[in-house]
Amino acid sequence: VNLLLLDSADVPSERADVTLTDRRAAHIRSVLRASVGDRIRVGRLDGLIGSARLTEISTTRVVLDVVLDTEPPPASPHILVLGLPRPKALRRTLVHAVSLGVKRIFIINGFHVDKSYWQSPLLRKDSIREALITGLEQAGDTVLPEVELKSRFKPFVEDDLVKLLEDRKGFVATPSAETPCPASVPEPCVVAVGPDRGFTEYEESSLKAVGMSPVSLGPRTLRVETSVPAILSRLAAS
Amino acid sequence: VNLLLLDSADVPSERADVTLTDRRAAHIRSVLRASVGDRIRVGRLDGLIGSARLTEISTTRVVLDVVLDTEPPPASPHILVLGLPRPKALRRTLVHAVSLGVKRIFIINGFHVDKSYWQSPLLRKDSIREALITGLEQAGDTVLPEVELKSRFKPFVEDDLVKLLEDRKGFVATPSAETPCPASVPEPCVVAVGPDRGFTEYEESSLKAVGMSPVSLGPRTLRVETSVPAILSRLAAS
Repeated sequence: VNLLLLDSADVPSERADVTLTDRRAAHIRSVLRASVGDRIRVGRLDGLIGSARLTEISTTRVVLDVVLDTEPPPASPHILVLGLPRPKALRRTLVHAVSLGVKRIFIINGFHVDKSYWQSPLLRKDSIREALITGLEQAGDTVLPEVELKSRFKPFVEDDLVKLLEDRKGFVATPSAETPCPASVPEPCVVAVGPDRGFTEYEESSLKAVGMSPVSLGPRTLRVETSVPAILSRLAAS
Repeated sequence: VNLLLLDSADVPSERADVTLTDRRAAHIRSVLRASVGDRIRVGRLDGLIGSARLTEISTTRVVLDVVLDTEPPPASPHILVLGLPRPKALRRTLVHAVSLGVKRIFIINGFHVDKSYWQSPLLRKDSIREALITGLEQAGDTVLPEVELKSRFKPFVEDDLVKLLEDRKGFVATPSAETPCPASVPEPCVVAVGPDRGFTEYEESSLKAVGMSPVSLGPRTLRVETSVPAILSRLAAS
């Protein structure tokens, strides 16, 4: 954890005394092993970043003198579309995407997505939120990404994706594509990565039909959890 | 698994009948659920890629008619230098690097590397080899990367790194660097990624002193397992 995220309810103003009694108090005691007078980096969920001085620490609570004064790092302009991978890999993939600054993620279905994945407890709202918070605390960011689950491929492509592409370029990572993935693209893009066994030919042609360009990340077959940081980092403007 | 790796001893020539009785026979039976007549993609470790037709399958053995006829995908020209992360993350990081085609990896020490990590069974030769094979089978490659463990930072930098940089550019991923990481670099590079809590100032200046340029992968703090696919994919020539 490079930044401790506080809820807006905990930090009513830019300078506040904040009392924590939950997992974050435990984290400060046991992981950071902080003592009175120490400073830790904090942020307000969806708000500013700053620092906190520990003014009290006991087995039941931790009190922080919080000052918030810095904007969170600029967001990535890119939207990520993700064929649902194995739920454990999804968690890691979300952390990759969040730590590369993505703020809007669609998790979509595909022929090669194991149907049971959609029933996984790791896809529940609270599990996804927990993965996103982990990513933000790791990355030193405060702005919670929006994640939408789209368990039907065709309506996603024809309704949502068509609209997203009205003012964005679109790229789909395709091992067989002849065009290499462009680097340092300044315009906002929609970036699609298929599930672990890939999109089908039908799915790829549906994506192409609405304006997604197939691009290659090299001659090797990548897992979702490799493709996502690979394509996001490659496209990032310098 | 996108390609089943066979040992050179198993496949004496480019066309051979191969009898398997080990984990690969079990994999063909239980995971691929293949039956007689099916074709699977195979490769010879450090050799050619091809396909195999299943000619016999029983509870004790699997026989394949193997034809090897294709070169493995071209290697990445880049060398990866990795501050040792948590051993579990190391395994995933190696799979990322292998699936992006890296063939030479140095795992190095640093002040922020937990000393206990060096004692982990996951750092044993056979565990590392197993991670590399997983990466190759995932990526559809056959060429086993070389991995060297360097538990002393200074001798690595002053002896090994200096030599590697004689005919290569060098970049070290540094969150505070002002220069963004270049994209699509055609020359062979040495790419260094610090351990999860980063290189120290002393370590960074030692790396700079021998010619490594600090580059940024964006304003957020990345984990090793995110930085590695991020920097390798960004540098890859198009």
